[in-house]
Amino acid sequence: MSNELLAARVGALEAMFTRANFLAHLGATIRFDDQYRSIVTLPHKPELEHAMRGVHGGVLATLIDAAAWCAAAVHYPSWIATVEFDVRLLEPVVGEDLVAVGRLVRAGKRIAVAETEVRTAAGRLVAVGGATLSTTRMPFD
Amino acid sequence: MSNELLAARVGALEAMFTRANFLAHLGATIRFDDQYRSIVTLPHKPELEHAMRGVHGGVLATLIDAAAWCAAAVHYPSWIATVEFDVRLLEPVVGEDLVAVGRLVRAGKRIAVAETEVRTAAGRLVAVGGATLSTTRMPFD
Amino acid sequence: MSNELLAARVGALEAMFTRANFLAHLGATIRFDDQYRSIVTLPHKPELEHAMRGVHGGVLATLIDAAAWCAAAVHYPSWIATVEFDVRLLEPVVGEDLVAVGRLVRAGKRIAVAETEVRTAAGRLVAVGGATLSTTRMPFD
Amino acid sequence: MSNELLAARVGALEAMFTRANFLAHLGATIRFDDQYRSIVTLPHKPELEHAMRGVHGGVLATLIDAAAWCAAAVHYPSWIATVEFDVRLLEPVVGEDLVAVGRLVRAGKRIAVAETEVRTAAGRLVAVGGATLSTTRMPFD
Repeated sequence: MSNELLAARVGALEAMFTRANFLAHLGATIRFDDQYRSIVTLPHKPELEHAMRGVHGGVLATLIDAAAWCAAAVHYPSWIATVEFDVRLLEPVVGEDLVAVGRLVRAGKRIAVAETEVRTAAGRLVAVGGATLSTTRMPFD
Repeated sequence: MSNELLAARVGALEAMFTRANFLAHLGATIRFDDQYRSIVTLPHKPELEHAMRGVHGGVLATLIDAAAWCAAAVHYPSWIATVEFDVRLLEPVVGEDLVAVGRLVRAGKRIAVAETEVRTAAGRLVAVGGATLSTTRMPFD
Repeated sequence: MSNELLAARVGALEAMFTRANFLAHLGATIRFDDQYRSIVTLPHKPELEHAMRGVHGGVLATLIDAAAWCAAAVHYPSWIATVEFDVRLLEPVVGEDLVAVGRLVRAGKRIAVAETEVRTAAGRLVAVGGATLSTTRMPFD
Repeated sequence: MSNELLAARVGALEAMFTRANFLAHLGATIRFDDQYRSIVTLPHKPELEHAMRGVHGGVLATLIDAAAWCAAAVHYPSWIATVEFDVRLLEPVVGEDLVAVGRLVRAGKRIAVAETEVRTAAGRLVAVGGATLSTTRMPFD
């Protein structure tokens, strides 16, 4: 994609994200950096915790999925669907805001791969993961 | 574990789950069947959707993590921590209630493995995944 | 697929497998059972071991990939390509023959998912894993 | 670990690798760079191919497992065991030599995580993956 098209996609994805109920519901926001990496920010709140007061693995998985999806989606003109993703939980998170950075690994014609690192606001690496995405013909937005 | 201890663990886990903020916040409930498989039920609500109105992959990941964790935790006297898990998304889910069933694959001294199938209330298989869990010495209160 | 087509595919895949250099080189053989599950058998030999004399994780990964691939491929008329797979190693294997059984989880138009269990000849479960496969238009054989 | 201990571990692991039957059998060799990343090199040979003449996914999985294992093992005084690993196959490999580079992500007391990138000798990225390793008390001889 040209840089102009990429910039247009960044705007469309950032706008779409505010309509993405689950992520908005969790309190996450998204932006892209100048290398088209996605940056998903999630302020802490008690609703994100598991029974032992750490942040639930499902929250970290959601950040990994969302950031990887965005990092890939920005390179395609139509909708992409997550096929699979994985999550490695490195350290507990207690009461800290989180920042997930997604990075494209490969944008194929039919399959894309992206990876995400999740850190606390202080920069501590707490989870890593990757995703496989499938292109579709479904128009985007 | 003896069947008596397992039954006691079922009760403790079912009670704990109601204190698990993230899952309670999503609206999930848990029980175990008579083979100590975990059954996590999640009624649909619009907050669980992504921008294209399907259920967000992070929701399915949360169900896979939670059901696998419970299916393993019931076999241990102290806390277990999720080390990693993965999610394969088979079909979109639109507006349907979900049921995740977790099944123990192996309960080792230090590492456990469990797998989860997620179906719609109508029985359609929509996601599969597995998890690796690590035992800890943290008391399970 | 009709049962006749499936039976024809079984024959084609069993024949192809003998030309699959890496698997033939390891000493693996393949067949299908009457539910079209793939069964990959690997007799032990010292070349399969790691430095501590257990069977190398790469060997178990190869069985998981091969059995999952076959369990999916039998349902498609043209070539399928492995997109990703994972491996959970449950117990060490020392000097034992191995049998991997692959099972189709979902055969979509573009994406298939299959899972594999690897057991010793004595029936001990030693590894589990799954795979995502992508359909192609490349003719098969 | 101190740099001296790390250097000693590099030597021990490089020596051990020549005794690792499966990898030696495939023709792989290992070394470490000055950041203690593992570098596993595998010259092409026809025995590594699948039926369509590409390098078999099991070979790429073996490189990912081996490089991740080495990148983690160099940081521990005793044996570590691979718990699980995954493989994302990005592009076919036909007749090319391969180089896998493993990088430590986290070295915990009981669990380590490492990631591997596999490239052709010409630098083309063909597969990525990660692994979870568990520490043991088994002496590393």
